[in-house]
Amino acid sequence: VPGIVTLLTDFGLDDTYVAEMKAVLLGGTPRVTTVDITHSITPGDVRAAAFLLNRAWHRFPEGSVHLVVVDPGVGTHRRPIALSCAGHFFVGPDNGVFTPVLDAADIVEIPVPHHASATFHGRDVFAPAAARLAHGEPLSSLGASVTDPVRSELPRAKRSAGRTTGVVVLIDRFGNLITNVPGTWVTPETEIMVGGIAVGKLRRTFGDVQPGEFVAYVGSGGTVEIGIRDSSAAQRSGVRAGSEVVGITV
Amino acid sequence: VPGIVTLLTDFGLDDTYVAEMKAVLLGGTPRVTTVDITHSITPGDVRAAAFLLNRAWHRFPEGSVHLVVVDPGVGTHRRPIALSCAGHFFVGPDNGVFTPVLDAADIVEIPVPHHASATFHGRDVFAPAAARLAHGEPLSSLGASVTDPVRSELPRAKRSAGRTTGVVVLIDRFGNLITNVPGTWVTPETEIMVGGIAVGKLRRTFGDVQPGEFVAYVGSGGTVEIGIRDSSAAQRSGVRAGSEVVGITV
Amino acid sequence: VPGIVTLLTDFGLDDTYVAEMKAVLLGGTPRVTTVDITHSITPGDVRAAAFLLNRAWHRFPEGSVHLVVVDPGVGTHRRPIALSCAGHFFVGPDNGVFTPVLDAADIVEIPVPHHASATFHGRDVFAPAAARLAHGEPLSSLGASVTDPVRSELPRAKRSAGRTTGVVVLIDRFGNLITNVPGTWVTPETEIMVGGIAVGKLRRTFGDVQPGEFVAYVGSGGTVEIGIRDSSAAQRSGVRAGSEVVGITV
Repeated sequence: VPGIVTLLTDFGLDDTYVAEMKAVLLGGTPRVTTVDITHSITPGDVRAAAFLLNRAWHRFPEGSVHLVVVDPGVGTHRRPIALSCAGHFFVGPDNGVFTPVLDAADIVEIPVPHHASATFHGRDVFAPAAARLAHGEPLSSLGASVTDPVRSELPRAKRSAGRTTGVVVLIDRFGNLITNVPGTWVTPETEIMVGGIAVGKLRRTFGDVQPGEFVAYVGSGGTVEIGIRDSSAAQRSGVRAGSEVVGITV
Repeated sequence: VPGIVTLLTDFGLDDTYVAEMKAVLLGGTPRVTTVDITHSITPGDVRAAAFLLNRAWHRFPEGSVHLVVVDPGVGTHRRPIALSCAGHFFVGPDNGVFTPVLDAADIVEIPVPHHASATFHGRDVFAPAAARLAHGEPLSSLGASVTDPVRSELPRAKRSAGRTTGVVVLIDRFGNLITNVPGTWVTPETEIMVGGIAVGKLRRTFGDVQPGEFVAYVGSGGTVEIGIRDSSAAQRSGVRAGSEVVGITV
Repeated sequence: VPGIVTLLTDFGLDDTYVAEMKAVLLGGTPRVTTVDITHSITPGDVRAAAFLLNRAWHRFPEGSVHLVVVDPGVGTHRRPIALSCAGHFFVGPDNGVFTPVLDAADIVEIPVPHHASATFHGRDVFAPAAARLAHGEPLSSLGASVTDPVRSELPRAKRSAGRTTGVVVLIDRFGNLITNVPGTWVTPETEIMVGGIAVGKLRRTFGDVQPGEFVAYVGSGGTVEIGIRDSSAAQRSGVRAGSEVVGITV
């Protein structure tokens, strides 16, 4: 069975770009299975793409190929790369979008074919490489080894005695404030504050508070989140991505 | 061939939630086929989800599994359930979203696995159950029987001698006003009024009126709809979801 | 292996229409592979659909079926048609949406089944025909030959000695201005103007200018595009679809 190829881009769903990449992915038979992660990344927002990729990739079965095309540097000298990490493959631009998986990865540089367009490497460079990996070709057949990949500075949570500090990295459709504070750093005794608002001790889930009340919990992505039961924490609090979150464990 | 799994959620397409569920659905081989019904349900709008589910599920082949995750009660004591009805399977929260198919259904309660997150049962409880059904496991293997499922009060059309009354339940992308009045309750002699506007006798289709004119017809979902040929009835009339529709058959 | 069926509609992603068509496409086994091109066409905009179809279809493998449902004339006397061209199949309304591929095509009229709804031929007429083609049935089995298909007047670029004139036909998510001027009509010596703004000589790609500067290049669809490196040409220039683009080659 050929592998799964996931797609994560800033292409939106109004243009034909995503379909043109899928056309390449499906060009060979037997068919690969394509899965959209999202195409709603703000154009060029490499850090947001890195964060969402990191939440999703490990949910897929081993052998999956993750094609990420958030590529503001297309048409400059940034390298096209492919990598393998923990039995998964990743294909996209060498611009830091793969930072969360680089440490454990084997990385190669994909040569740009002569016929490739100069502005759509997603279709002409990355998708063909992803298709080859999905059909079982080894990573090493795609290009020469890379040892100095570009890294993004992703915001990291910090902790010192009893005090954890991080940021809101994402607000989801429900208005939940998703932070970068690992769930393993907090306990049921930890008092959570976000954007200067005290939201109480860490709970397990929404049912532990009344409707309309704030609730801090370890979310499905493994980090601390702050929500409001049956409402939008983002709307009600005015807290935005980038706001500070603090956890104090006495 | 493993079955089809459809997805109907309020997750939107910007976050990774839909992809994380598909990762679980595709985790086993041979592969299931996933189909998005919609992910645009207003967060927590169980009734809208019930209405859209009811329009779509029976179009799919027998054996299909319909995974519905509009689940404002995640993290409370609402039960996860799976049901079979007319050769189809349904998986999701016991919150009334399955009301249209409950009468003829066998229903079981899905136990929550120990490792499940407390806030994303779509990924950790419902998707694994849907995958098992799609691979042919019997409903009864998923859990113990449920006989008292939660029901939603969906708005129902009424009729008395010569007079039919219902509501606009949905406005589609074209601005057509979709009502809950069964097409079998009206005839070519029925005069239709919506939101106080007389739109004339029931017609067969758009070609039966001139461009810019109102037209009432039995829509593709089997209920009365009101449109304007080559325009948006919603925009032109100001009629909204919840408005009354009346049919008078002399 | 059954073929690929692509979908290009003005249905959006909020209603169940796309899923209802996929239900029909997937109804027969073995399964076809469905790929969304886009569902964001402005309702009834046949010309936009023709333009996007033309950018995407030839990227798919031979044997693919392209199902296009931008069908403002549903419920009038417009004909349902299917056609083959260059080893690909196309199914949809005879309203000009297939203009770019009509010249080389064999065309048949699809009869409307008795049970078909009068307002959703996408589900009841076009999807069944597409499924038959995807499973290998010959075009001629679908209906009788058509020799006078409807054509759209798509805007065409013109050229005379040294001067090329076209229009902006599409603005993509990145704010790039996509024109209908064939890339083969311009050279590195061609000076490009769009909406009255001189944007300089044709370049190869974004890396040939500094961030914030205009750049004209032959885009991935084979026509001239105008962008701004790391920004949105549409926002910064105020140029809209329909604006004139001129290329002067000395």
